[in-house]
Amino acid sequence: MIMKKTRLEHDLLGDREVPEDAYWGVHSLRAVENFPISGQPIGDVPELVRALAAIKQAAAMANADLGLLSRERADAIIAACQEIRANHLHDQFVVDQIQGGAGTSTNMNANEVIANRALEIMGHAKGEYKLLHPNEHVNMSQSTNDVYPTALRIATWRGLQNLIAALASLRGAFAEKAEEFADILKMGRTQLQEAVPMTLGQEFNAYAITIAEDEQRLAEAAQLMCEINLGATAIGTGITAHPEYAERVRARLDEITLIPVITAADLVEATQDTGAFVQVSGVLKRVAVKLSKICNDLRLLSSGPRAGLNEINLPAKQAGSSIMPGKVNPVIPEVVNQVAFEVIGNDMTIAMAAEGGQLQLNAFEPVIAYSAFRSLSHLIAACETLEVNCVRGITANREVLRETVRNSIGIVTALNPYIGYAAATEVATEAHLTGRGVYDLVLEKNLLPKERLDAILRPENLTRPQHFIS
Amino acid sequence: MIMKKTRLEHDLLGDREVPEDAYWGVHSLRAVENFPISGQPIGDVPELVRALAAIKQAAAMANADLGLLSRERADAIIAACQEIRANHLHDQFVVDQIQGGAGTSTNMNANEVIANRALEIMGHAKGEYKLLHPNEHVNMSQSTNDVYPTALRIATWRGLQNLIAALASLRGAFAEKAEEFADILKMGRTQLQEAVPMTLGQEFNAYAITIAEDEQRLAEAAQLMCEINLGATAIGTGITAHPEYAERVRARLDEITLIPVITAADLVEATQDTGAFVQVSGVLKRVAVKLSKICNDLRLLSSGPRAGLNEINLPAKQAGSSIMPGKVNPVIPEVVNQVAFEVIGNDMTIAMAAEGGQLQLNAFEPVIAYSAFRSLSHLIAACETLEVNCVRGITANREVLRETVRNSIGIVTALNPYIGYAAATEVATEAHLTGRGVYDLVLEKNLLPKERLDAILRPENLTRPQHFIS
Amino acid sequence: MIMKKTRLEHDLLGDREVPEDAYWGVHSLRAVENFPISGQPIGDVPELVRALAAIKQAAAMANADLGLLSRERADAIIAACQEIRANHLHDQFVVDQIQGGAGTSTNMNANEVIANRALEIMGHAKGEYKLLHPNEHVNMSQSTNDVYPTALRIATWRGLQNLIAALASLRGAFAEKAEEFADILKMGRTQLQEAVPMTLGQEFNAYAITIAEDEQRLAEAAQLMCEINLGATAIGTGITAHPEYAERVRARLDEITLIPVITAADLVEATQDTGAFVQVSGVLKRVAVKLSKICNDLRLLSSGPRAGLNEINLPAKQAGSSIMPGKVNPVIPEVVNQVAFEVIGNDMTIAMAAEGGQLQLNAFEPVIAYSAFRSLSHLIAACETLEVNCVRGITANREVLRETVRNSIGIVTALNPYIGYAAATEVATEAHLTGRGVYDLVLEKNLLPKERLDAILRPENLTRPQHFIS
Amino acid sequence: MIMKKTRLEHDLLGDREVPEDAYWGVHSLRAVENFPISGQPIGDVPELVRALAAIKQAAAMANADLGLLSRERADAIIAACQEIRANHLHDQFVVDQIQGGAGTSTNMNANEVIANRALEIMGHAKGEYKLLHPNEHVNMSQSTNDVYPTALRIATWRGLQNLIAALASLRGAFAEKAEEFADILKMGRTQLQEAVPMTLGQEFNAYAITIAEDEQRLAEAAQLMCEINLGATAIGTGITAHPEYAERVRARLDEITLIPVITAADLVEATQDTGAFVQVSGVLKRVAVKLSKICNDLRLLSSGPRAGLNEINLPAKQAGSSIMPGKVNPVIPEVVNQVAFEVIGNDMTIAMAAEGGQLQLNAFEPVIAYSAFRSLSHLIAACETLEVNCVRGITANREVLRETVRNSIGIVTALNPYIGYAAATEVATEAHLTGRGVYDLVLEKNLLPKERLDAILRPENLTRPQHFIS
Repeated sequence: MIMKKTRLEHDLLGDREVPEDAYWGVHSLRAVENFPISGQPIGDVPELVRALAAIKQAAAMANADLGLLSRERADAIIAACQEIRANHLHDQFVVDQIQGGAGTSTNMNANEVIANRALEIMGHAKGEYKLLHPNEHVNMSQSTNDVYPTALRIATWRGLQNLIAALASLRGAFAEKAEEFADILKMGRTQLQEAVPMTLGQEFNAYAITIAEDEQRLAEAAQLMCEINLGATAIGTGITAHPEYAERVRARLDEITLIPVITAADLVEATQDTGAFVQVSGVLKRVAVKLSKICNDLRLLSSGPRAGLNEINLPAKQAGSSIMPGKVNPVIPEVVNQVAFEVIGNDMTIAMAAEGGQLQLNAFEPVIAYSAFRSLSHLIAACETLEVNCVRGITANREVLRETVRNSIGIVTALNPYIGYAAATEVATEAHLTGRGVYDLVLEKNLLPKERLDAILRPENLTRPQHFIS
Repeated sequence: MIMKKTRLEHDLLGDREVPEDAYWGVHSLRAVENFPISGQPIGDVPELVRALAAIKQAAAMANADLGLLSRERADAIIAACQEIRANHLHDQFVVDQIQGGAGTSTNMNANEVIANRALEIMGHAKGEYKLLHPNEHVNMSQSTNDVYPTALRIATWRGLQNLIAALASLRGAFAEKAEEFADILKMGRTQLQEAVPMTLGQEFNAYAITIAEDEQRLAEAAQLMCEINLGATAIGTGITAHPEYAERVRARLDEITLIPVITAADLVEATQDTGAFVQVSGVLKRVAVKLSKICNDLRLLSSGPRAGLNEINLPAKQAGSSIMPGKVNPVIPEVVNQVAFEVIGNDMTIAMAAEGGQLQLNAFEPVIAYSAFRSLSHLIAACETLEVNCVRGITANREVLRETVRNSIGIVTALNPYIGYAAATEVATEAHLTGRGVYDLVLEKNLLPKERLDAILRPENLTRPQHFIS
Repeated sequence: MIMKKTRLEHDLLGDREVPEDAYWGVHSLRAVENFPISGQPIGDVPELVRALAAIKQAAAMANADLGLLSRERADAIIAACQEIRANHLHDQFVVDQIQGGAGTSTNMNANEVIANRALEIMGHAKGEYKLLHPNEHVNMSQSTNDVYPTALRIATWRGLQNLIAALASLRGAFAEKAEEFADILKMGRTQLQEAVPMTLGQEFNAYAITIAEDEQRLAEAAQLMCEINLGATAIGTGITAHPEYAERVRARLDEITLIPVITAADLVEATQDTGAFVQVSGVLKRVAVKLSKICNDLRLLSSGPRAGLNEINLPAKQAGSSIMPGKVNPVIPEVVNQVAFEVIGNDMTIAMAAEGGQLQLNAFEPVIAYSAFRSLSHLIAACETLEVNCVRGITANREVLRETVRNSIGIVTALNPYIGYAAATEVATEAHLTGRGVYDLVLEKNLLPKERLDAILRPENLTRPQHFIS
Repeated sequence: MIMKKTRLEHDLLGDREVPEDAYWGVHSLRAVENFPISGQPIGDVPELVRALAAIKQAAAMANADLGLLSRERADAIIAACQEIRANHLHDQFVVDQIQGGAGTSTNMNANEVIANRALEIMGHAKGEYKLLHPNEHVNMSQSTNDVYPTALRIATWRGLQNLIAALASLRGAFAEKAEEFADILKMGRTQLQEAVPMTLGQEFNAYAITIAEDEQRLAEAAQLMCEINLGATAIGTGITAHPEYAERVRARLDEITLIPVITAADLVEATQDTGAFVQVSGVLKRVAVKLSKICNDLRLLSSGPRAGLNEINLPAKQAGSSIMPGKVNPVIPEVVNQVAFEVIGNDMTIAMAAEGGQLQLNAFEPVIAYSAFRSLSHLIAACETLEVNCVRGITANREVLRETVRNSIGIVTALNPYIGYAAATEVATEAHLTGRGVYDLVLEKNLLPKERLDAILRPENLTRPQHFIS
């Protein structure tokens, strides 16, 4: 057996060997051992790793500006951060996403990787911390308690932008279908019973509109993520930080990320409060609930193939059954439903974690992050497959839809203003009992002259508000 | 303005006037002032009030047996408790169901009402606590921390029995329908697409069976409620209690309530643990989820009246619309769905409250009780209205159902063992594209001789496992 | 037995006797029979009843303006609505809050009560619907599907304003305490371990700030409630409504309620979408989570009386125990915690109900309303009792707090910029093992001269960012 | 660029190339393209893959026994399944865990891998499905709708056994500590206020007991997983299955897995019902809630290092802070708390997915499985790190604990039976106001003679029920 080469590192608890080629160090090592939970390291979340690097870079710049950090060290740290922001070394971010310690292990993992890479850039060996120290230099003027929540906010902000883009694209697909189906009359339904006529275009347009509203709500929620607490250090009092540091690091971070970050007015409050994550997750839940409702509708409208509503056809994407030949199922909406259920569960996890915060800090931010990042990435994937593999290929069964209106009892509603609710109820009841049509019954009972009835029931009069037809 | 007569009472915090005719006293008064939350007093939950009285009666008996309480006082307390168990004085249980203090206010409300009623029975005025004291005599050998959880368990146990009875009755209604519909062939559906044939009787029988399983699960869960911690006093160490008290009070409580209560093996654990409520609520959630699924099915199967599945008819219970004449909606299943959603929300509340317990006690039992009692009573009411106002009156649209099978592509599955999955897939695809029938296509393609095909497709062969037909 | 006088009413299902003195009619009667669920009628929610009356009044005005409703009928309807808005006849709103039918029973209950009261005002007997009909006149140009959600939004908007006011008042109490405690130094804590110094004033100020943020978020959420769908009628197509009706009724409603209502851009979407309730509930959950966290903190900081943190004292509000003499418990924060747990459960219920919407309507709005109204009213009550019965009376144990800083190891953090993280770690470790003070150890080890150490550790330098002290 | 060799496969939708070396086929390929959601393939869940193989093996045996499958094909299938059960080919299970189609893609992935491996074993090339077909032979007598839920149940059963074992080991650690701390007197606390004395051993023993109860509840819940629906085929009617197949495949599965599986009494019900998963998840939530409560206690009891309860010490596992030198945090309990929050969220997801089942099937079983498997594996990992990295190393601060009892006001409770609640309340109040001790005050007030007081307050009399001391 070949022994892997190691270097010796030291911390509060003593000495430990770490692999010589590892950029992470003793703090990361202990965390890996302490938290073998999900098997999903933080390196699996590129937005988070890039956000950490952006913050460390901004801090190094601010510290150098203030004369607290030597130019040489600052330049090396900045270079290392730029590499990470360009997606290098992500495999060195090894601690489990679900971790104790309020994010300290994530922060120390970043400090160690950056320090070792910066040491290399300076021409030194990894582990030569006397020359550039993970805590004293990379973490200068910082604490996990301001770095970690700020990194989560930046990563979440980016995830929200990506989700907004995915929703916009999905919305476009629905809007196109709305136009395509604009002239197809059908019966609208309330409580699964036929109600009154509408067009299939109106139905699909409502999906486009409702998604557009979600995009707006997400954009508003994203603004909550722009409020950061860099400069708070341990608990918001700014201990160990220079009075000008908070503003300088903010400006640098803005410059690096192009995100309009602002510093919270009260850093003590900002350091302990996770309310913004609860709210963002609440909006993600809103999105999930609405996507799920849309997918329920698509599954219902395409139910069949013969003994269902059978109003629309979803594109066939795979054989539907291992036993039933020729069966095709609404598999894409089904997977979106399931992502929605997961997001709703994640929202619960986030609420519990947020409620568990104590005094000057919330120690449970890692599981907030884990849950929020999964909600975001799964929602984005769900929107994309829904758009590409389903909505864009939907077709309408025009003949079926036409029949629903022709047979409908619900069109009697349009006669309310002319014959009154009570008389209309009698017509409807008789139609229901006899199986006959409303049109014939109204004429037979001399409730309205034929020309007037025809005018009232003209499609364009049924699907929008109308003047009294005399 | 007429001044209401009052009496003066005293507690830790000083003196307070209480109405002379009130059976409750100063502790209840302060609680009413401190917790003006839901407006729903504990007196609104008769099972809880009766359970408290049963426990106080059992304690008085046990204390008298042990020579700790004089016969005269014990008899008066017992008589007062019997009145309360016969539903008197429930309006004197005035503290809000949602309360701080881990149930102390509920326990003191009971102690005060019983003490004052017992004083009257003894021929004294209310408030003469030197003669019979709410804490020293009514609460003797007890603490809120053993009385209150025990009362919740007894009340919950009774609620569970009532729910089991309501479910059994609902199950009976489904079973009757299953028999009525035993010979009606229809297409079963998976993923809202026609799958293979079954009978409507099989469909309704599954509802009866699934409810029967829930009855069993509830009966098992009810057993968890039989474990009590009387004798634990403050934290489970039994401080101030006689060594024989725990067993004596248990036996008396068993005798009074006819519930097979047992004393927890470790009273320290039993006093702090609310896991049994989490589990019972989890089973209530299971019941809710399944009732909701059944109601979703009923709404779907009765969708129509013309452009829906239209396979069954729910009895019309009220006009369905303020604007659409003659519209009838599935209002009973809809209300059951909503109760289910509420129960699922309550389960979340209970989980959070249980998680919030600290060290030797869970201070949040009141909201656990509030949530569990609502889940129980609303579920019971939902089962009853579902049975009486809906299931008993369901009828089948035999003609529609027959057509679904005749037109079906799904029956091709029955041919798998004879013509193979691949050939069957081709038949199904062609049927789908051309709108033609499977039966004709199989004959046309000479895949099977007519007599054999007829035999395979005989209804009794389609709805159960079958030997190979040669 | 005395027979109560009745009148005969008729609907789709036939004839029914209703009490002669009842303002509600046959539709309400059937609903009461169909939905015996919670025992809490809609009349228990005054904001909802007043909102319904405001909408009916606005509709009557708009219909009269458009010449669709006679002046006499309009005036009678308006007068009846004004009475209800002045809190009369609320006991006539008898249908259960948890109901099937998507709110139709609530709408019909309102239509019937208003029609009968208007008939009386016109000098007729109740029940003379030929003269003024609940559906044809009171409900003119309307559907449950636009009236009901609009009423929920107006009632919720008002509830939100009341909650904002209660929070503002609570915030004021915290801000006052923050000022009172501004000069009291203490140790801040992260993860329940002492971290670095802060003032008790900073700690309480963070509570004030965090509540202020919630007020803003609620105000934003309230705007979502201003978007109404009056004019949509059954499914958003405006069938039976005059083209100018939507704008006229909106303007009238604005005028009557002084709420800046706007009509949704797409009424089909607005009629089926309950996303705004999911989002509002999400913000209520945020408020609940944060209040719960604050209350957890208050209970922790006041833990004791001797073997706890014992940093602050909550006012004693009631005897804490039925068995432990002299015990005083944090009962007010405890009840707030429980309300928070309930709100979080309600949020779950709302999400499920919202997800269950189908096609052109969500039939589960009643349980959304039931849950949202309870969340609002219980949160308001919780804020009030927390402010009045707890926060205003909090006192600080100055001596205890002073000691925590004097003994603290955590102040070593302030030395980081001067002696480095590694040396500081050694001092901390030694202090921990020996029980000695950081101050003495630093001097003993000659790490810093005494004057400089004194300057660094000056309270005003510990609780805010500082320039390097040379 | 080198072209990878491929083979051509065919399904309902047409032809597709798959890599020649892939054991999966066209159905898996389409699923991979349709469901790019979580990036976590089913192959990541070894218990699930092994369960699928066990079922396929049992089915091949049963089919061969019944003469439906040739011996040669059966042997090849069995051999392929045995390899998979021995953890080979798991990387060929490529479809995403979150998938539409009710598990069809998982089942087809298994059918394809097994068919291709069996073909190789028979000496043929992969893809020669005419010789051995994924659907016709590997899936013979089966449907996704009986195979998939059965596989989930077997995998969950195994996960539950593993969790029970992890809990038992954790319980052992607490029991050992209970013995070690058996003689250490301390103050018990209710509502974070000192209550009455107990031993630290009693406190830790309660944790052991409470975990033991969870083990029992899990064992009961595991039995629900033993009920399978093999033989149901598509919807429970057993279409295409031989009448003896169900019993034969069950017996074979029992034999292969050594799990006492039983066939559900009603297969239609069993095929659509996911109630057992809701209940199992409810019990997992119970476990999570209780573990979280224990971890909250551990964090509270170890709070400090100086200004906290400071009663116990958790072993230091890593440096606690990137900024605060020497800080050690309760990182292990914190990670367990977070897993608990996740499990509670997963429970919500499972409830929603279960509620969404429709008619003869629940299409959302994949997300039920995804959530349940994560709950199980994360809980197991959490128990293990809690035991090994925390509980086993806990030490007690005996001196601190002794002081809490000596200073305590709560011991006055023990005097209740001797001096009465009212007098005891006065002593407690005076002790609280003056800071003096209960012992001195009782003597000074001549409430009890010294010898009697000493006897009453003897530790062994304070921590268990006692006879009256005269």
